Amino acid sequence: MRRSVPELLLAKRNGQALEPDEVRGLIQGFVRGEVPDYQLSAFAMAVYFKGMTREETVALTLAMRDSGVVVDLSEVSALKVDKHSTGGVGDKVSLALAPLVAACGVPVPMCSGRGLGHTGGTLDKLEAIPGFSVNLPLSRYREIVRDVGACMIGQTAELAPADKRLYALRDVTATVESIPLIVASILSKKLAEGIDGLVLDVKFGSGAFMKSVEDARSLATALVEVTRGAGKSCVAWLTRMDRPLGRAVGNALETIEAFELLHGRGPEDLREVTLTLGASMLLLGAKARSDAEARERLERALGDGSALSVARRMVAAQGGDPRAVDDPSVFPRARVVGALTATRGGYLTAVDTHAVGVCGVVLGAGRTRAEDVIDPSVGFVFARTVGDRVEPGDTLATLHVRSDEDLAVARERLGRAFTYGDRAPEPVPLVLERVG
Amino acid sequence: MRRSVPELLLAKRNGQALEPDEVRGLIQGFVRGEVPDYQLSAFAMAVYFKGMTREETVALTLAMRDSGVVVDLSEVSALKVDKHSTGGVGDKVSLALAPLVAACGVPVPMCSGRGLGHTGGTLDKLEAIPGFSVNLPLSRYREIVRDVGACMIGQTAELAPADKRLYALRDVTATVESIPLIVASILSKKLAEGIDGLVLDVKFGSGAFMKSVEDARSLATALVEVTRGAGKSCVAWLTRMDRPLGRAVGNALETIEAFELLHGRGPEDLREVTLTLGASMLLLGAKARSDAEARERLERALGDGSALSVARRMVAAQGGDPRAVDDPSVFPRARVVGALTATRGGYLTAVDTHAVGVCGVVLGAGRTRAEDVIDPSVGFVFARTVGDRVEPGDTLATLHVRSDEDLAVARERLGRAFTYGDRAPEPVPLVLERVG
Repeated sequence: MRRSVPELLLAKRNGQALEPDEVRGLIQGFVRGEVPDYQLSAFAMAVYFKGMTREETVALTLAMRDSGVVVDLSEVSALKVDKHSTGGVGDKVSLALAPLVAACGVPVPMCSGRGLGHTGGTLDKLEAIPGFSVNLPLSRYREIVRDVGACMIGQTAELAPADKRLYALRDVTATVESIPLIVASILSKKLAEGIDGLVLDVKFGSGAFMKSVEDARSLATALVEVTRGAGKSCVAWLTRMDRPLGRAVGNALETIEAFELLHGRGPEDLREVTLTLGASMLLLGAKARSDAEARERLERALGDGSALSVARRMVAAQGGDPRAVDDPSVFPRARVVGALTATRGGYLTAVDTHAVGVCGVVLGAGRTRAEDVIDPSVGFVFARTVGDRVEPGDTLATLHVRSDEDLAVARERLGRAFTYGDRAPEPVPLVLERVG
Repeated sequence: MRRSVPELLLAKRNGQALEPDEVRGLIQGFVRGEVPDYQLSAFAMAVYFKGMTREETVALTLAMRDSGVVVDLSEVSALKVDKHSTGGVGDKVSLALAPLVAACGVPVPMCSGRGLGHTGGTLDKLEAIPGFSVNLPLSRYREIVRDVGACMIGQTAELAPADKRLYALRDVTATVESIPLIVASILSKKLAEGIDGLVLDVKFGSGAFMKSVEDARSLATALVEVTRGAGKSCVAWLTRMDRPLGRAVGNALETIEAFELLHGRGPEDLREVTLTLGASMLLLGAKARSDAEARERLERALGDGSALSVARRMVAAQGGDPRAVDDPSVFPRARVVGALTATRGGYLTAVDTHAVGVCGVVLGAGRTRAEDVIDPSVGFVFARTVGDRVEPGDTLATLHVRSDEDLAVARERLGRAFTYGDRAPEPVPLVLERVG
C-alpha cells in the first residue's frame, strides 16, 4: 500500500474514491491482523456517510471473497446458478427453487444464512427436516452439487471469513445500513460458492429490510452491477414483502409448504415468485432461450415429479429423512395448536408483516441473538390474507405454539397485526420489476 | 446506560444528540475497557460528520476530565488562571506570560504539551534550560503554584487519561479534525489542572492549525462556551499566525527570546500578544478591573523586575539553572551558525510559516513522531519579516544548525519560504478580536 491506513481513512472521510488495490490492501491487512478493528470500524462509518464507487465495491467484494476458499466447481460442466433473497417473512422460496431448477439441468450450489431478527433463515428451515445437516465439508458439497444438482449448506468458516469478521464489527458500530457494505457482504459469500450466475430477490415493504421501493431498487442495481463487475451474470427482481409470502411462517411449517409447491400445490404468490426467479436462473444457466420457454420447462419439472425427485435425493444426501418431502407428519409438531379468529368483519387491508416476524421470534421460531436456540415446530399458517373479506369468528390463522400462555400471546400480537377496512384494497403486483 | 452502545452510535450517526449521561457513560465505559476501541473510533467518525451540541461537548469534556485526577488547588486562595494556545510557529508566549501574570498576583497552574508536527511545544522549550524538569509529581506542582505562583509541567498520566487514549485513536482513524473532539481534548486537560479561569489564544493563518479566520472563530466560540458550561470563566483571542511570532524559532532560541521579553526587550509582536493575553488573565483573576489597569500592572511587573524574579524562582524550583533567565550563554549552542541572505531586493510580502515550522522539524528542532529526540540548539532568528524592505545580500535570518549540510538545507528551504514584491503589503492586525 502506498498510502498509510490513516491516509486511506482520511481520503474516504473526505469523499474520495480509493484505488482498487488500496481497498484490497485494507481488507487483506484486516484479515492478517495488521489493520486493527478500530480502523476498520472508522472506515465503515466513513463509508456509511460517503459511499463507495462501483469500482471500489467490486474491489471490496473480491477482497472479501478472496479472504477464504473460492470453491472450484469446474468438474461440473453446466453453468451453475444460485439465488439470493434479501429476506422476508415466510420466504421459503429457496427450498422449492433449488431442487426445481436443478431438475431442469441447472446445478444450484447454495450457501445460506440463519435467521436473525424478524426474518427466518433457510438453514433453520432445512434443519426442521429430521437428520438434515447444513454443515458439510466443502468436498461433500461439491459431490452433491455434481451428483444431485443441488446442495444447500451454511456459510463455513472457510468461505469469506473477512465478511464474518467485518459483519460482526458493523453489527456493533451502527454501520450495517450501507449499500456498498451490504453488497460486499452478500456477494463475497455468493461469489465464493463456485457459481457462474446469480439471481437476486430484492424485497421491499413492511416485512423487508428495505422498506421503500427506491431503496430496494438502489440495492438491486448495486448488487447486479457489482456481480457483473466480478465477472458473473446476474439479474435481480424487486418483489413485494408487505405481507407474509405464502401461508406458512415458521421453520417446519414453511418447509412443508415449500415441498407442497413441488407437489403442484401450494399458494399462488409463492408459486409466482418461485417461477419468476427460476425462469431467470434457467436463462442464466442457458437451459432456456426465453422466459416463456423457461417457465414451460419449470412447469414440466413440477408436473412430472422430477423436482420432487431431486428434492428427495438432496435431502437424503444431506442426511435428512427423504420422506419429509412427501409426508408432513415427519416434521416436529407444536405442543399446542389453536385458531386466531376475526373479532370483527370487513376487508383485510394490511398486515404488519414485521410484527408477524417479531411475533414468531418471540414465540421461539427465530432468534434475537445468534446463540438463541429455535423451536422448528413453532409458527403460523394464515387462512386469510390482505384483500380477503372476513366475518366475525372466521379463522384468520392457525397458531402452532409451545404452551397455552404462548397461544394467548400469539392471539394478542397477531390479532393486532391486521388492519380492517370497509372496502377491498386495490390489488398490487407481487413481482414489481426486473433489474439488470 | 439505558441505551446500548450500538444504539448510541446509531443515534449519533443519524444526527441525534445524546443525553449528557449517555456521553459520560460512553467515556467511562471506554476508560474501564468495557467499550472497545472499535466502537469509540466509529463514534468519533460519526461525530466528525454529525457534530455535537454544546451540552454534549460539555459532557464529553467533563467525562474526560474526570477520567483522572482533578488537581485540588483550593489551598491557594487566589483565582488561578491558565492560558492555552492552539499552537503556532515561534509561539513562546507561555514562557514569558506565566511568570509575568504570577508576578501580578494571579497564580498560573500550567500543564502543557510537546511539539508535534510543524509547531513547537512549551515543554520542549522549557527543557532547553539545563536541568529543567517538566515531569514533577502533582504534589510538587501544587507546592510550586502555591509558593512561586507559576508552575509549568507536562501532562502526567494522572490527568485526563481518557484524552490520551482517545487522541491516540483519533490520530490513526482520520478523526482529529472535529471541533467538539478538539474542544474536549484541550479542555479536559486544562480543567483538570485546578484552574478557575482560562484565556485562549486561537491562532489562524498559514502557520496555524486553523487556516481560516472563520474556522478559528468557530473553535474559539466552542472553547469559550464549553469552558463556561463547565463552570469556569473564559475569554479567547483570535491572533494572526501568518508569520512566525517574534524573531526566534527553535527551542533554546525561543526560550531566550521569552526571557528577553521579561527584561523589557524582545520583539513588539510577541510583547503585544503577551500583554493582550496577560491582561485578560488579570481580569479573570480579579487583579484588575479594566484592560487599561491590567496592562499597566503588567508593564509595571516587566519594569520592576518582579516578573524576572518569578521566572528565576520557577526555573530553580523545577530544577533548572536560574541563570538561564538572564544569561543566554547557559543554553546549548548549535555547532554551526550561518546567515541566510536575500538573493534579490524588494519588499517581503509573505512567509510560508508552515514551511518554516517544517524546516525546523527537518533540522532537528521538532518531531514527526512522538518518540523523536529533538536538538534544543537548532533554530532560526529572523532579522527581517513581512513588510520589511530588503536589498540583495541583506541578512534575512541567522541559522543555528548541526552541520554544514544542514546549513545548506536550511538556506535552500527557508530561502524559498519568502515571497517578494515591489510594494509593501498592507499592514494587518496581529490581534484580531476577542471572543466571549
